[in-house]
Amino acid sequence: MNYLVLGGNGFIGMHLVKALCNEGHDVRMFGRRPVDSESLPENAKYITGDFTDTPAVAQALVGVDVVYHLISTTIPSSSNLDMVADIQANLVSTVRLLQAMVDAGVNKIVFFSSGGTVYGNPDSNPIQESHPLNPICSYGVVKVAIEKYLFLFKQLHGVEYNILRVSNPYGPNQQRFGVQGVIPTFLLKALKNEPISIWGDGSIERDYIYINDLIHVSVSAGKVMHNEIYNISSGIPVSINQIIEVIESITNKKLMINKLPPRNFDVQSIALDNSKAQRHFDWSPAYALREGVSVSWDWLKNNY
Amino acid sequence: MNYLVLGGNGFIGMHLVKALCNEGHDVRMFGRRPVDSESLPENAKYITGDFTDTPAVAQALVGVDVVYHLISTTIPSSSNLDMVADIQANLVSTVRLLQAMVDAGVNKIVFFSSGGTVYGNPDSNPIQESHPLNPICSYGVVKVAIEKYLFLFKQLHGVEYNILRVSNPYGPNQQRFGVQGVIPTFLLKALKNEPISIWGDGSIERDYIYINDLIHVSVSAGKVMHNEIYNISSGIPVSINQIIEVIESITNKKLMINKLPPRNFDVQSIALDNSKAQRHFDWSPAYALREGVSVSWDWLKNNY
Repeated sequence: MNYLVLGGNGFIGMHLVKALCNEGHDVRMFGRRPVDSESLPENAKYITGDFTDTPAVAQALVGVDVVYHLISTTIPSSSNLDMVADIQANLVSTVRLLQAMVDAGVNKIVFFSSGGTVYGNPDSNPIQESHPLNPICSYGVVKVAIEKYLFLFKQLHGVEYNILRVSNPYGPNQQRFGVQGVIPTFLLKALKNEPISIWGDGSIERDYIYINDLIHVSVSAGKVMHNEIYNISSGIPVSINQIIEVIESITNKKLMINKLPPRNFDVQSIALDNSKAQRHFDWSPAYALREGVSVSWDWLKNNY
Repeated sequence: MNYLVLGGNGFIGMHLVKALCNEGHDVRMFGRRPVDSESLPENAKYITGDFTDTPAVAQALVGVDVVYHLISTTIPSSSNLDMVADIQANLVSTVRLLQAMVDAGVNKIVFFSSGGTVYGNPDSNPIQESHPLNPICSYGVVKVAIEKYLFLFKQLHGVEYNILRVSNPYGPNQQRFGVQGVIPTFLLKALKNEPISIWGDGSIERDYIYINDLIHVSVSAGKVMHNEIYNISSGIPVSINQIIEVIESITNKKLMINKLPPRNFDVQSIALDNSKAQRHFDWSPAYALREGVSVSWDWLKNNY
């Protein structure tokens, strides 16, 4: 099979590309930053390009069987600062991608949506896929709109899809500290013996998924399109205090904690119900937090 | 009160402007086509401008208390032909409108969404506001995305809103025949003694709301912002055959009917449950179909 992984050079993308190549597939990667081609698996090829450059994307689609779309040019916390730019770079470019897929006869796509932003403040916990969608950031609204366009392209043009609403992934190779979640950020602080900052008393709970668990189900999601939406998560709410405890135990260091006042927009507890993905993909998360953090710590010590 | 009616020169807009002026309010209208200012109510002012021209919209906002947003540059049936243009002209321009409102200190908006497109194919009938949103045209996806941005601007900037998901409005002054629904189209054909075309056996049912009923609740929706979404409809499914029967009875003419094969994308029956709007606005539709069609026919005879 020929795969195109848009955003193949990011944290999730690199793990996914390796997994697909390990299964013997040919993988084309597309991303903005140049990469060292020596570092890539043998049957992976890298194309440097901008996602808003539709002709470049169309060129990358030629001969592809399945597209993985992992690109976002924005992050939740900054997306509200320029919503129009968010719409232009992500929503418009994705609609153009879908049109280019129709033109190229490519009719399968796995889209990485956002379990952390599309639901907004939860009415219930854990959150099921049918929960109302009331994002409180433009990043989330754009993800919702893309989901709706995927449904529409299925109806109009038969483009098949799986949508993965992923919770907070973590693991080795996660490099954009401070942007991609508390676990890599806290681990780096532990390594550098610097204090961490937390808002409130540390009781706030979120859902973290270890990268190998995410990749496992992502590979399955590229094989059969169900035209469905899935929460991809551990399903387990984990508090900031639990993360600190696990990190202290694994690193054998006492973290210095800088406690800041609680933020009024932080929801107390969110976890995503992943039972639909478990049923449809015959999958379940295999890594406990302690195990995932331990592997991440080993990688960080050897690679920072 | 000072109102700005975006799309004030359309079918719904003109009726709304007259109703607001009748209550003694000052109304600014904004639209693309020039209008004869002699034809406007005394306390209405018309601004010719393009909705995508944000500085012109921002200028029109100065001193306004409440915005009614009725503009769409696309219609459902053609919106799939150029989805990117739909996003640019309607979604991006509306986000820019909301930002201009924040800048101008205008914090109330009534948005006319689309009861006919946001839900897609119904799971249940009549449809409640909580029904899943799976539009099968870009027009509907853009309306959904705008609804989500309204929710977001409320959270971020306190811009208050009412969203009206309107079914199929009809009544006097409805001029864009063939585009704005079967009732004016059929009436015009009756007047000109031309055949009408229907797809299938005429048993397909839709929800039609008489313009006066729509305007009544729209005026209420401009007075108190609930930050809620409302179906605005008659709540009654009416078949094409029923419409033909009513028109034949009122016009005293036998319609010539050109029967075409059924279209596979036509849903059999849709009506919108309006009980939430009835409760929150102490409103209910007052016009029976026969009464509304009769007034529309009298207008058409005298004005065509």
